Amino acid sequence: MKAEIISIGTELLLGEITDTNAAYLASQLPLLGLNLHFISTVGDNQQRLVDTLRQAWQRSDLIITTGGLGPTQDDITREAIAELLNEELTINSALAQKLQDFFRYHGLEMPSSNIKQAAVIPSAQIISNLRGTAPGWWIERDKRIIVTMPGPPSEMQLMWMEEILPKLQQKTGGTVILSRTLKTFGLSEAKVDELVSPFLSVSNPTLATYAKFDGIHLRITAKAHGISEAQELIDHREADIRGILDDYTWGVDSDTLESIVGELLIVKGLSLAIIESGTGGLLANVITNVPESSKYFRGSLVAYADEIKIAFGVDAQLISQYDAISAEVAEAMATTAREKLGAAIGIGLTEITGPTEIEGKPIGTIFIGIDNGQSRQSFARNYPGNRLQVKQRAVTSALFELRKILI
Amino acid sequence: MKAEIISIGTELLLGEITDTNAAYLASQLPLLGLNLHFISTVGDNQQRLVDTLRQAWQRSDLIITTGGLGPTQDDITREAIAELLNEELTINSALAQKLQDFFRYHGLEMPSSNIKQAAVIPSAQIISNLRGTAPGWWIERDKRIIVTMPGPPSEMQLMWMEEILPKLQQKTGGTVILSRTLKTFGLSEAKVDELVSPFLSVSNPTLATYAKFDGIHLRITAKAHGISEAQELIDHREADIRGILDDYTWGVDSDTLESIVGELLIVKGLSLAIIESGTGGLLANVITNVPESSKYFRGSLVAYADEIKIAFGVDAQLISQYDAISAEVAEAMATTAREKLGAAIGIGLTEITGPTEIEGKPIGTIFIGIDNGQSRQSFARNYPGNRLQVKQRAVTSALFELRKILI
Repeated sequence: MKAEIISIGTELLLGEITDTNAAYLASQLPLLGLNLHFISTVGDNQQRLVDTLRQAWQRSDLIITTGGLGPTQDDITREAIAELLNEELTINSALAQKLQDFFRYHGLEMPSSNIKQAAVIPSAQIISNLRGTAPGWWIERDKRIIVTMPGPPSEMQLMWMEEILPKLQQKTGGTVILSRTLKTFGLSEAKVDELVSPFLSVSNPTLATYAKFDGIHLRITAKAHGISEAQELIDHREADIRGILDDYTWGVDSDTLESIVGELLIVKGLSLAIIESGTGGLLANVITNVPESSKYFRGSLVAYADEIKIAFGVDAQLISQYDAISAEVAEAMATTAREKLGAAIGIGLTEITGPTEIEGKPIGTIFIGIDNGQSRQSFARNYPGNRLQVKQRAVTSALFELRKILI
Repeated sequence: MKAEIISIGTELLLGEITDTNAAYLASQLPLLGLNLHFISTVGDNQQRLVDTLRQAWQRSDLIITTGGLGPTQDDITREAIAELLNEELTINSALAQKLQDFFRYHGLEMPSSNIKQAAVIPSAQIISNLRGTAPGWWIERDKRIIVTMPGPPSEMQLMWMEEILPKLQQKTGGTVILSRTLKTFGLSEAKVDELVSPFLSVSNPTLATYAKFDGIHLRITAKAHGISEAQELIDHREADIRGILDDYTWGVDSDTLESIVGELLIVKGLSLAIIESGTGGLLANVITNVPESSKYFRGSLVAYADEIKIAFGVDAQLISQYDAISAEVAEAMATTAREKLGAAIGIGLTEITGPTEIEGKPIGTIFIGIDNGQSRQSFARNYPGNRLQVKQRAVTSALFELRKILI
């Protein structure tokens, strides 16, 4: 069943609001086994909306509209659908009564324009709106379904969950589409693509790669006649991929590197401290976004100026010998963090974030030092990008290496 | 000139990401006097993309695409436009060289698939991408313009600002729509609305308010027959608003609190150091997002554990007497930051970010201490919200108060 979404409202075309409704519905449709082929956004212009509806009517089985159901002249979704289907709009007396009751209940007088929200066409089944005055429509005609919902996200989502989703589930039957996302770090998207290329052309389960700020994500999507069958397909493909990318795979679905590192630290009863320079506090910030972080995170010294590293205990001679941005200094920072901030594990993180190169080392050069009390390691990395990207990648790299040491 | 946006990427149709590019571009087009009639979203499917492009070619004068310019098989925008225009894709040797140089500079080997990012059609003018490997295209043919930009928002926005916007400005001329955004902090959106209500119903310039993470923004938009006339309309309205909201207004347009504070510190030749606790490094991180920050930022101690505050020099007795989250301790942290990190100004920032209340003080309680060497002040604030919102608001409040002290 091919699905299409039409978002209606001039405010979307003026960029005054971002269309979150389309993204919400898009994320819901795969659960029903429905394939979304297009999303279109149209302003409050009846002719252009009718044209868009006509095209959707020709190429899709399910058309979902949001917006344009308000009480003002601008709201033309009802009129456009009536024109598309060549049906007549009439006032439904029960709906009109409900509208009047709604206003009376809130001690308000109903503006006369509101009566248009009680207008319906013969083939539309009325869908109640529990959070507003605009009812939705469910239309089945000529083997197609049109679902019409209001634009305010809270009204739309409630209507979707309570009314539309159950009706669509009846229509689609047992097909289930499930997804799982594997998260990797350390390889480029092109390299990941190359390594898993045999699976990219398989039609079930499908596999797609996405470049994200915390690495390359691989999304496995399976279509089956039941949840357990879909999960089995996904489990097999996950095992295939882990066989190839195990060293790089750090998480699944909603995992974040900081949540995974946090869980490992709690399980092992270890505490963590940091000295960071170019990342300017981003590593500490990301770690403390985890609600439980006070259980294991001691603190961080953001040593932007070299004198502060030295005043805190990092060997000045080491800095002048090897340069502040070096493996040796990153290791010394890790040890100082561990000792001075009283933690089981210390991380030292130093890098060149720009705007200019330093001592011939390019922007994006990163050194990570980790001292866990038994041994000390350092990692040199280089990721291209602007200042904020380099900061982010340095933090991702540090958490990724820390995870490897903890597992 | 009728404009149309096509957003390309299966991840948009799966609801994995929200299409913020379309909203950004939609908000830009009115500045050029361009009318946006449609936004379409298509997956990584060449046939459907070609169909969508063909329709756009028939009904619009300007077609802007984002996405689908990556190096993988999925990325089909170049191929689809070549098919639409019936032109041939060939590898541009200068672009290929640039790509290879990019990888070499970062010490990486270029995956062979990346070469497709150097493919162009004869009618396409190459638009350079300062933040990534995918160049854009500018095509003028048959009285139509096609603009092709990469999907990652930071790459797209820079390309738009630096390359595309100036080229489109040349093409349009005549009616100008200009906007200016005033940024305030410290009042609720409802309160700001109430104070500026007479201006909200005026049709030129229009005024709209938006609640953002760094306060309430007021957007003034004027339509006129020339830039100077539009600017004059905006200047007048800005003066009106500043007359009402002057104490709360901290910036304009692309200003950020950290960039404004940074400029003030540079002008006054002052340096800054921090001790922060519950914000976990976010204040230092935000400050160091400014490229020039190494000129004035000394560093920060992220003292998540109380013992670290004490070890670093904050009076232990003060903490036990007043509690770590108190005005007294925030002031002591400011002084310790100033003295121990060797800066002209010290900030101490402490707050309750959750998950639970501490000593009867609710989540969202914030204390800011500032010591500039001559005097010491503290500020108590409370903003409701979740962990990340409280962290953000504490940082915004601290920067807002620091700005007031510096001006």
